[in-house]
Amino acid sequence: MSSSMLLRSLRLRGYFGSCGSASALPRRFYQTDTMTGEVVALPNIQPDRLQYTKTEKPRTPPPSKSLVFGHTFTDHMLTIPWSSLEGWGAPKIEPYGPLSLEPSSTVLHYAQTIFEGMKAYRDEHGNVTLFRPDMNMKRMNTSAARVALPTFDSDALLQLIKKLIHFERDWIPKEPGHSLYIRPTMIGTQKFIGIAPPSEALLFVICSPVGPYYPDGFKPIALYGTTEYIRAAPGGTGAYKLGVNYAPGVMPQKHAAQLGYTQNLWLHGPEHYLTEVGTMNLFVVLKKGDAIELVTPPLDGMILPGVTRDSVLSLARNHVSGNYKLPNLPNLIVSERPITMNEVQEAETSGNLVELFGSGTAAIITPVNRIGYLGKDIHIPTGEDGMGPVSRPIWTELVGRQMGSIPSEWSVPVTA
Amino acid sequence: MSSSMLLRSLRLRGYFGSCGSASALPRRFYQTDTMTGEVVALPNIQPDRLQYTKTEKPRTPPPSKSLVFGHTFTDHMLTIPWSSLEGWGAPKIEPYGPLSLEPSSTVLHYAQTIFEGMKAYRDEHGNVTLFRPDMNMKRMNTSAARVALPTFDSDALLQLIKKLIHFERDWIPKEPGHSLYIRPTMIGTQKFIGIAPPSEALLFVICSPVGPYYPDGFKPIALYGTTEYIRAAPGGTGAYKLGVNYAPGVMPQKHAAQLGYTQNLWLHGPEHYLTEVGTMNLFVVLKKGDAIELVTPPLDGMILPGVTRDSVLSLARNHVSGNYKLPNLPNLIVSERPITMNEVQEAETSGNLVELFGSGTAAIITPVNRIGYLGKDIHIPTGEDGMGPVSRPIWTELVGRQMGSIPSEWSVPVTA
Repeated sequence: MSSSMLLRSLRLRGYFGSCGSASALPRRFYQTDTMTGEVVALPNIQPDRLQYTKTEKPRTPPPSKSLVFGHTFTDHMLTIPWSSLEGWGAPKIEPYGPLSLEPSSTVLHYAQTIFEGMKAYRDEHGNVTLFRPDMNMKRMNTSAARVALPTFDSDALLQLIKKLIHFERDWIPKEPGHSLYIRPTMIGTQKFIGIAPPSEALLFVICSPVGPYYPDGFKPIALYGTTEYIRAAPGGTGAYKLGVNYAPGVMPQKHAAQLGYTQNLWLHGPEHYLTEVGTMNLFVVLKKGDAIELVTPPLDGMILPGVTRDSVLSLARNHVSGNYKLPNLPNLIVSERPITMNEVQEAETSGNLVELFGSGTAAIITPVNRIGYLGKDIHIPTGEDGMGPVSRPIWTELVGRQMGSIPSEWSVPVTA
Repeated sequence: MSSSMLLRSLRLRGYFGSCGSASALPRRFYQTDTMTGEVVALPNIQPDRLQYTKTEKPRTPPPSKSLVFGHTFTDHMLTIPWSSLEGWGAPKIEPYGPLSLEPSSTVLHYAQTIFEGMKAYRDEHGNVTLFRPDMNMKRMNTSAARVALPTFDSDALLQLIKKLIHFERDWIPKEPGHSLYIRPTMIGTQKFIGIAPPSEALLFVICSPVGPYYPDGFKPIALYGTTEYIRAAPGGTGAYKLGVNYAPGVMPQKHAAQLGYTQNLWLHGPEHYLTEVGTMNLFVVLKKGDAIELVTPPLDGMILPGVTRDSVLSLARNHVSGNYKLPNLPNLIVSERPITMNEVQEAETSGNLVELFGSGTAAIITPVNRIGYLGKDIHIPTGEDGMGPVSRPIWTELVGRQMGSIPSEWSVPVTA
């Protein structure tokens, strides 16, 4: 089908509403042809085409105390099909259930899958909010482009996710520290085993009620400074939230567990630059004379641009600039810079290693008390509550903003 | 369930035949617990439990001339489920059709998928053979271990694949250069979104009749010497046949195509070592004084141990040692050694670049006539038939052995 025929066909099917000519089309109806790079007019995600099918077997959400992360899913899911000929199809909120995938589906062979992790919170007044969801939508588009999956209108998907959350609002646990974990996922569903941009894809969003990651207070974890395996490398995919970054980490994690450590500390290069912790971003806190330095590796193409990472940096920088002082937080230097294991070791020896923690959507902040590195253990201070002088006030502020007890623009209301 | 209970339950279910005691169990019934590393007794793949369900809608194989690689699948597929509690379940040959996968299936989120590519050939007498299938089975087990998927008895899976091919033998095209492409795949089907060794998996095998990759003779391809993206890195997964190695290559391939090249030439490190070509292994042929050197990068952890790569090396080495002289092949030096772009450039300048080709199951040998590198093109000689003095006799021998016109141990009969 030629472009002009296609445009005509889409116009005939009413995709463009009252816009008669191609030049008057709203921007959201354009997208890049994944095969040619050409910008063509195909339907983008259209919230007003949403169809609802209610489950005939509604379930009662389980008691919040019984929740195990990622094991329970709500009654409904959102699905949006895409094809290279038709663009994005009608979104559906439908009963949660198995997907029917051809054995030749490209995701099953070549791992064309991307995902996001977000949380919906219910505040003490029953209001439901999302935390910085625009960042997840933006990152999901970046991830899609990296593995030649279709990009989409971020606002449109966010509208639909809000509708799904509102539809499933009875599944959001009420207890403090609990939330509804939202998992937007996109997979290549093309039915040919050729290594190429998929001609078909499916975007789906599932929801899982979750409890606090550390129900009994913070438990600092031990890391294995991993020199045998890598998570990412320059020119690779470490900066994108792709399925392919996760499967290869499972076996190294088993290896670390066998050695008595909880997670891998992923290192890079002969200098052993610190990059990430398990599936979290990484922060190191160092004493520098009279000052305290909060260090995290820069977004150099190997580091996932985490929403929690960005939030920690933003809170710390606002504190430094005096825009918004956090109680009990010392004066800081905030550094996005490379840091080596050698520097961490020297800081331990000189007594300048203040704390080290991971950041991520699932656990928010995860303190670290030990790193196994080249046969020796580096010990890292933690307070009686498991945390440190920088992570504690930042965590308090972050959780307050997420749960709605501290008002902020990061908290976005979910309404009907 | 405790180990002893499990053993008892398995004995009760007749898994161990006449072996009464655990110590007398045949080796194949043991496997490594992916969680603990402990060796436990769980059922391995058992060909004698195979169940057949014949399709009610048998189709007629399409004309061989119409075949497009990976687009047509036969009437049946082989499936074998696995769970961490039950081990490998009953294999089934059943109608080809969609898999029902929970949206939470770990393969859809974290890319726990591995695969193999094999071909079944039908010789002029109607005999059906596989080419070195033991190598695929061995590699698939190595791949499984790398992403914490279950390992299995190679002989048992091969028996079942042979049964599937025999069942589908009418789908093997008769024309020379045609074959039945076999795609064994294993995916993590655990229904929780946790990053861990999957507690459930599915092994399936699908078959696709294919024509020759170059139906009109060899068409040399142009490569883009890629410095922006990588395929693999030390400590990564390049040496394993995992889905995760493929999705990240699609976008760089699009980029290469936009620049006028067919495939990526994957380079490594600041020295720009040559590693692989698209999804193929790589060979370079150089004039060295009076001798000819056949070079391929060593299996250093970044290179896929290709079956065709190994076959090319083996034929060349047997020729060198005089075990088995290939007609029209010059005397060779065979080198598995690192080779840089600088060396290739210098060989072009000095007139010592003889040929360069990719090797793989799909296309067997793919000659290269041009490499775009840092803004310039390196030109590589090819003969009138598209090939070179080393690839031509090796290709002839290889295809003869695959199709059965040259008898060899590499060709393994498929019978009922």
